Amino acid sequence: MELFGALFSPFVRKVAVVAAEKGLALDMPPFSFADPCDDFLAASPFRKIPAIKDGDYRLCDSTAICAYFDALAPDAPIYPAEARARGRAVWFEELADTIMVPALGPAIFNRFVLPRLRGVAGDEEAALAAIAKFNEVLTYLEGVTPAEGWLAGEFSLGDVAVASLLRTAEYIDAGLDPARFPAIAAWYDRVTARPAWQSVAAMEIGQAKAAGLA
Amino acid sequence: MELFGALFSPFVRKVAVVAAEKGLALDMPPFSFADPCDDFLAASPFRKIPAIKDGDYRLCDSTAICAYFDALAPDAPIYPAEARARGRAVWFEELADTIMVPALGPAIFNRFVLPRLRGVAGDEEAALAAIAKFNEVLTYLEGVTPAEGWLAGEFSLGDVAVASLLRTAEYIDAGLDPARFPAIAAWYDRVTARPAWQSVAAMEIGQAKAAGLA
Repeated sequence: MELFGALFSPFVRKVAVVAAEKGLALDMPPFSFADPCDDFLAASPFRKIPAIKDGDYRLCDSTAICAYFDALAPDAPIYPAEARARGRAVWFEELADTIMVPALGPAIFNRFVLPRLRGVAGDEEAALAAIAKFNEVLTYLEGVTPAEGWLAGEFSLGDVAVASLLRTAEYIDAGLDPARFPAIAAWYDRVTARPAWQSVAAMEIGQAKAAGLA
Repeated sequence: MELFGALFSPFVRKVAVVAAEKGLALDMPPFSFADPCDDFLAASPFRKIPAIKDGDYRLCDSTAICAYFDALAPDAPIYPAEARARGRAVWFEELADTIMVPALGPAIFNRFVLPRLRGVAGDEEAALAAIAKFNEVLTYLEGVTPAEGWLAGEFSLGDVAVASLLRTAEYIDAGLDPARFPAIAAWYDRVTARPAWQSVAAMEIGQAKAAGLA
């Protein structure tokens, strides 16, 4: 199976970690958003990242791909079976995708996309405003993160989604302050210690070096 | 169980239709986004609409609530069991939520929120540009809508999500042109003929009349 995208993206990392949790093997062919391959365009008509090609099956959108993986390899489910826990797990995924990513977006744009990908200066004031907004969301998250275990009780897609975004924040010097957010920091350590996360992190170092990001 | 929001919203309608498909009874207490009740704020820390209260359980985000309902009442599942169909079903939900809603958003704002909720004139040029963009997405959808049956093979959350947005489009005179999009129009007729949809549509007429929208 092929995964199109770069692991710097929280959406791509989320899919790669879920695949690793489930023992699904992924190839990541070299990918350029500016000059995407035909396989990517066939899988992702609106150029959403990531996309996959699995034989003659193509799919885009990280949430859809994770749902596909969960049905394909139902061992180690990423959606809790119990209803309230399942609702919470999907809420944390939505928190990451629809609240945390938009909040941090202008910081990623001004501290990463503009200076590192396009070679022009970013708007640091806009980046700082975005990070302040992002920290407001983290204040909520700090209050609902358990002292032990996982966000929705059992390990779930919610943990992967939130942690994946926190990892991207580190690239733009917006990483977690453990003094301010101790519960999140301890939980993040638990997520990132998992073998699946570690295996993706090793791949990511290779991609970051190749792209001049590490 | 209480559902907070108004059925004009495609996200609220999606949740109400899924509940009806599953035979889950919902109350919809009077709701004001400008002056939300404490129960809503406790369920939805970032004021996402809709939210629910089910005994001592609170949850927001339409996708999370639908996942909760599916686990709570697993008969008539809204996620196909087969992996490729499940991936497609979630893709169509994401198409509605993350591509179609943002495309149509400026038209909803300028033809509905500004003139009908705030009593000021909207920017018709911006509305027309949004509708043109929305029709580009419909051109994609027309190409992947089957002549019979449902978007992901079996009836799913994807059908509910896309149809819910098309219904909202009708309120702003951006409804489907059946001559231009015959496959979507025939599929939309199939979705809206379902008893669950019809029961929500009857409630919606009441809400629309009370709000002076019909």
